[in-house]
Amino acid sequence: MRDIVIIGHKAKTSGDISLNDLPGSAGRMDILCRCVSSALFLSFGMRRDVIVHLLLLGDPDPGKIIRFEGLHLRYLNPDERSSGSLIQKALQKDATEQDIRSTPGVWIRRGDFKSLLSEFEGRTLLYLREDGEDIRELSSEIRDPVFVLGDHTGVTEEEEKQLLEAGAKIISVGPISLHSNHCITLVHNELDRAEAKRGESPGEADCRVED
Amino acid sequence: MRDIVIIGHKAKTSGDISLNDLPGSAGRMDILCRCVSSALFLSFGMRRDVIVHLLLLGDPDPGKIIRFEGLHLRYLNPDERSSGSLIQKALQKDATEQDIRSTPGVWIRRGDFKSLLSEFEGRTLLYLREDGEDIRELSSEIRDPVFVLGDHTGVTEEEEKQLLEAGAKIISVGPISLHSNHCITLVHNELDRAEAKRGESPGEADCRVED
Repeated sequence: MRDIVIIGHKAKTSGDISLNDLPGSAGRMDILCRCVSSALFLSFGMRRDVIVHLLLLGDPDPGKIIRFEGLHLRYLNPDERSSGSLIQKALQKDATEQDIRSTPGVWIRRGDFKSLLSEFEGRTLLYLREDGEDIRELSSEIRDPVFVLGDHTGVTEEEEKQLLEAGAKIISVGPISLHSNHCITLVHNELDRAEAKRGESPGEADCRVED
Repeated sequence: MRDIVIIGHKAKTSGDISLNDLPGSAGRMDILCRCVSSALFLSFGMRRDVIVHLLLLGDPDPGKIIRFEGLHLRYLNPDERSSGSLIQKALQKDATEQDIRSTPGVWIRRGDFKSLLSEFEGRTLLYLREDGEDIRELSSEIRDPVFVLGDHTGVTEEEEKQLLEAGAKIISVGPISLHSNHCITLVHNELDRAEAKRGESPGEADCRVED
């Protein structure tokens, strides 16, 4: 399993976002949409072994977590409007502390970064930062990882503190600073290569289930 | 310099495409939009050493080439609508065999795959296919490359024949088949790493020019 957390510090938390203005009035929701697509799509199918967690911290009701589970997902296409539309549908639900399913494979609940991190106890927590250890040096050892990425504003000092307290390792994907969705593509490629080297089947694209 | 060619077999060739329906009525223009973004964006700036060539082969007027030059580009944001809007503006021009500039850093002309390939004589032509040689085995030797990628339908037999006749080498970026924009991110990362290893400054993000 690969879990990917993206923190959207400005991402709107009401269901009235406009799919025609994801970067603007929706609070750079375009970044989260591209991350969903990079995290979940293969050329001919979906990564069924991936779960994406979007932490939405923008107005008017900050602290919502939308989860995309590759294993159960339907109605997602690779374009930004498509993931934006599933995010919009999730935000139109009355979110509580308990998961509510908005569409197949998509759930929403209330929560903050700390509550999200607490779900991953015992997992390999990896935090992407430009000056981290090169993922190529350690990709062969990574099992069952949780990757945490910021948005265009990065990760706050407080979030970084929580990450390090939770035992996160700081890793990087290359010599220059890239967009979060590009980092996700690079992380997947490293793990795909490591899995293929071990004789495993990377991507697990074929283990589709109906729900 | 890194040139990236993407062939859009269904991509519409008239200026009336809808930015609200890039995957549908615009003929999978969303794929080309994501490729433009992956090819040109760094976290804090643009890859000034990259030129993107979109070959549009869809109805109603197939055979148009839109060129994005990182060195001169303006008004491009990373979201799909933004590149879609610049493509739309280019398509609204009366294209001829000669370049016409539609917005800063974007040009359009009439042309087919053969005429486009003829521009790259003497360059290192690299064609991405799942069963090619692993780019990691040769990235340190790559200089001044031209990468050619297909869309969701890949590359036709005829295009492949033309590529091989032009001396293209077939390369792959990993063990599973990925979307074209993800391949572009991976290709850039390999070259960035190779350039950094040689003490060069990858991305050339800072050589902005005004035009």
